Amino acid sequence: MRQTQDFGLWMLAQQKRIELVLQDVFSNLNRAAPTLHQAMRYAVLEGGKRIRPLLVYASAQTVNCPVVIADAIAASLELIHVYSLVHDDLPCMDNDIMRRGKPTVWKAYGEATAMLVGDALQSLAFEVLADALLHEKSDHAAATIVALSRAAGIKGMCGGQQMDLDSVGKHLTMQSLEQMHQHKTGALLKASVSLPAIAAGASVATIAILNEYAQAVGLAFQITDDILDATVDSTSLGKTAGKDAAQNKATYVTLLGVEAAREKAEKLCSDAHQLLESLPDLAWPLGELADLIVKRNS
Amino acid sequence: MRQTQDFGLWMLAQQKRIELVLQDVFSNLNRAAPTLHQAMRYAVLEGGKRIRPLLVYASAQTVNCPVVIADAIAASLELIHVYSLVHDDLPCMDNDIMRRGKPTVWKAYGEATAMLVGDALQSLAFEVLADALLHEKSDHAAATIVALSRAAGIKGMCGGQQMDLDSVGKHLTMQSLEQMHQHKTGALLKASVSLPAIAAGASVATIAILNEYAQAVGLAFQITDDILDATVDSTSLGKTAGKDAAQNKATYVTLLGVEAAREKAEKLCSDAHQLLESLPDLAWPLGELADLIVKRNS
Repeated sequence: MRQTQDFGLWMLAQQKRIELVLQDVFSNLNRAAPTLHQAMRYAVLEGGKRIRPLLVYASAQTVNCPVVIADAIAASLELIHVYSLVHDDLPCMDNDIMRRGKPTVWKAYGEATAMLVGDALQSLAFEVLADALLHEKSDHAAATIVALSRAAGIKGMCGGQQMDLDSVGKHLTMQSLEQMHQHKTGALLKASVSLPAIAAGASVATIAILNEYAQAVGLAFQITDDILDATVDSTSLGKTAGKDAAQNKATYVTLLGVEAAREKAEKLCSDAHQLLESLPDLAWPLGELADLIVKRNS
Repeated sequence: MRQTQDFGLWMLAQQKRIELVLQDVFSNLNRAAPTLHQAMRYAVLEGGKRIRPLLVYASAQTVNCPVVIADAIAASLELIHVYSLVHDDLPCMDNDIMRRGKPTVWKAYGEATAMLVGDALQSLAFEVLADALLHEKSDHAAATIVALSRAAGIKGMCGGQQMDLDSVGKHLTMQSLEQMHQHKTGALLKASVSLPAIAAGASVATIAILNEYAQAVGLAFQITDDILDATVDSTSLGKTAGKDAAQNKATYVTLLGVEAAREKAEKLCSDAHQLLESLPDLAWPLGELADLIVKRNS
């Protein structure tokens, strides 16, 4: 009981922290291209659940990652995540007009600028991370950046997005569905817990446990997303609901049904808790985050 | 005379080298997303003048940058350059159907995949560079990656692209035109000569001279581009010609006329040569590259 209360405070503190870090990132940018600057801020600030930054901070305190580097990792993962949303929303992808309760970037700034917003956010993610690693004279700079780039590119998120595109209208097996999600959303979630460990020079064993935890939580996250898309309305969700059914997409709900999908998510969540037993007590927010991810309603 | 012959051989050798390096990059990628893998290869391999890699190799031999790192810098800059072309060609940007003498990526693979190709190529650029710096245990990994990310993002190429978008239909002064080009194409060209120097831990003075050289050559490159767009047909150019006039864009040709634009490019080229006099003799291919950039006909 005590811990759940503590978690509410912990989460609020981290969410405030990441907002300040992200605001800082933008106030340090030059403004030679003011339209782009404004559109990037519009995409990033005041929005989102900041799940990846929360995972970063929880992992960082577990592995004793320096706070300046944790901030940079949290910002870089959120920037990569937001860039992918901006590009996903474009007419040639999902053609979405509503995101985080406001018009999508292309609706507000036009398609060409939305594309550049995504492109520039990706560069910015690497800049923010490399800059902090440089400033802190990190011994693990190159390894940390390799891990971010793999999570973002064809071996991770972009690869998963292409698998998703290629799967439209096809019958997907559970195995292909999981492979797709492990790339599309799983890679960044995994990076959220592994990057602080890599940057902190944690042991291979610790990194392996964190990766297993992230794999379970990432999958549970996606299953929950599928359940929400099928069961919650757009207003509560803050984005267009019912998209999967409209696009005739294979999801955990279409393959398993809502009830079995929910059970699978809960099983994964309890696996995640079990993995955390081998980590220091400081890892407790990772357990709470696993619960939050499965029990969220938006 | 002797040196011009040598330069032909030097250039052929470096062009062969970068093709092999780029082929290697793709053969080391996993193929879980085969459509994306194939479309990325289509965008990158067998095409282009490889001007950025040539500048990288010329700078690398001047500052004694390890060859494995030079290869990675050359590949990463070419990957960033190609990603920007793939996104530029999309219907929401330039709506171009022909590039390097073949259908553009979106014409061949569809718009959604073309967007992902660009996104994944940007991640890959950072991965290739960080991977080599990790492998070589570089002391300058973070600084080198900061420089790449700045050249690619809002402070560099993406910022310039937005300035270009914002300038359509407006009267541009020479100053705004130069600012736009210094970002849009200048930043990556400058990075091509400065990254090997940063990675090699060259002196601040050497980096400053290389940056000045790159500034002159970058501007000369853009002026030559404008002249070619106004005076050469699409077939010789390997891409759509006459686009600037059709889009009513301010260019060096519209602001200065063809003759004065050509004189300006030649003046910049001679400035570049003068700067090289303070660098070691090994810098000679940088002088030849300046000539090539101004005298090219496609």
